[in-house]
Amino acid sequence: MRPQFVLFGDSITQQSFGSGGWGAALADNYSRKADVILRGYGGYNTRWALFLLHHLFPLVFDCLFVDIRDSPCQGPLYAIESDIKPPVAATIFFGANDAALSGRTSERQHVPVEEYKENLRRIVHHMKECSPTMLVVLITPPPVDEEGRKEYARSLYGEKAMELPERTNEMTGVYAKQCVELAKELGLPFIDLWSKMQETEGWQKQFLSDGLHLTEEGNAVVHKEVVGVFNEAWLCASEMPNDFPHHSEIDGKNPEMAFEQQCL
Amino acid sequence: MRPQFVLFGDSITQQSFGSGGWGAALADNYSRKADVILRGYGGYNTRWALFLLHHLFPLVFDCLFVDIRDSPCQGPLYAIESDIKPPVAATIFFGANDAALSGRTSERQHVPVEEYKENLRRIVHHMKECSPTMLVVLITPPPVDEEGRKEYARSLYGEKAMELPERTNEMTGVYAKQCVELAKELGLPFIDLWSKMQETEGWQKQFLSDGLHLTEEGNAVVHKEVVGVFNEAWLCASEMPNDFPHHSEIDGKNPEMAFEQQCL
Repeated sequence: MRPQFVLFGDSITQQSFGSGGWGAALADNYSRKADVILRGYGGYNTRWALFLLHHLFPLVFDCLFVDIRDSPCQGPLYAIESDIKPPVAATIFFGANDAALSGRTSERQHVPVEEYKENLRRIVHHMKECSPTMLVVLITPPPVDEEGRKEYARSLYGEKAMELPERTNEMTGVYAKQCVELAKELGLPFIDLWSKMQETEGWQKQFLSDGLHLTEEGNAVVHKEVVGVFNEAWLCASEMPNDFPHHSEIDGKNPEMAFEQQCL
Repeated sequence: MRPQFVLFGDSITQQSFGSGGWGAALADNYSRKADVILRGYGGYNTRWALFLLHHLFPLVFDCLFVDIRDSPCQGPLYAIESDIKPPVAATIFFGANDAALSGRTSERQHVPVEEYKENLRRIVHHMKECSPTMLVVLITPPPVDEEGRKEYARSLYGEKAMELPERTNEMTGVYAKQCVELAKELGLPFIDLWSKMQETEGWQKQFLSDGLHLTEEGNAVVHKEVVGVFNEAWLCASEMPNDFPHHSEIDGKNPEMAFEQQCL
């Protein structure tokens, strides 16, 4: 069974298999090496994400191991151990909704910044409980283009659109900072997307389609950063083996030779 | 655990998560509903694909069930039953390499057409043994643009490029026909990509990047056809439930209510 990378986050993760998406590009990089599993939940904040944790990442692995050891079923059931595996890597990419302002149109999604940080900590803790060796990568929310958000609201609601923005770049930056601080506290790799994107002049329209979600170029930034983190860890695609022989290694007259070595 | 769709095939499947790829687009359609798992093997023919079958699609499901039933471990081990599941759908997309001509540069990949059909039959049989209810979709190889193949060879090898094509559209059509015949014999849904693409004038450059592999528009054709087959079966994305509540169903003040119904 191939290693799994799980992408856990909000709409920016959910949309990551759309055209030019960072998730699809990652799956392409790791084709024949790892499965990239999409667990993106549009509109979700970290508070709601906590409800999903035990469903998405059950802690059954150790239990099974113990059960099997203690049980008289030593035979074929042993296979189960190697068949159910926690992911080897996960990206945790929340905050864009937590940072929605209290008292504005998206208030329902707002989570206070202290709670955001604690929720992220609980998510990381759970992942590490699933597997202490899991590569957990924290990604901050991207910056917010307030003008882009306004234009988007006007395109949907016309004159009725609220004049006050439901998210500000400044407030999202506060959340991004807490995400980075937590990663440093826990010694985790992180991607400070909020800062990274703002290094490029014209980031507002180049990287964001509606002031919040990513354009293809914005997706390319996330993709490049994630690949960078994976490369620095032990998950560089070019160093990982293909799951089966490359076709050029297969002898047309004796194909079984190539497969005997790798899979029989 | 979400239902899985497996894409099993050669390079045209392996590349399906590239930019504008049909696999990524499918994963996007089914986000929060099903996982699209990539099992594409560039350069592979059906003969070589047979070596992978038991590794990629193990027949352990029934065994485990029996083992558990017959063993004294009735307790927590029961969870295993629902944790390991065969895919609910699979696309089988081979033939572009089988149809490489004998006596030409890609001879090593050639598989006689009768054997191609029998190999496909064995693949389908195996999938149905994994799960009799699996939706197995046969896809024929796309047409071949011989001029495009020549140009591609010249771009790689210059004057040294072989003048004789390693694949012809006519011969690939013979394989496509056998694929369709098998699908009809077995009562399986199929996509006659070879015929479908040739209905469009200019298919050679519009759908094929090098006379064989797909452009973004070619990918869009495959995507549309696969979605059509899935919709006609019981796997229409819009009729499948999200795995967890839509964010608009979550009460900001009482989030647990929405989750209690669906997952607690």
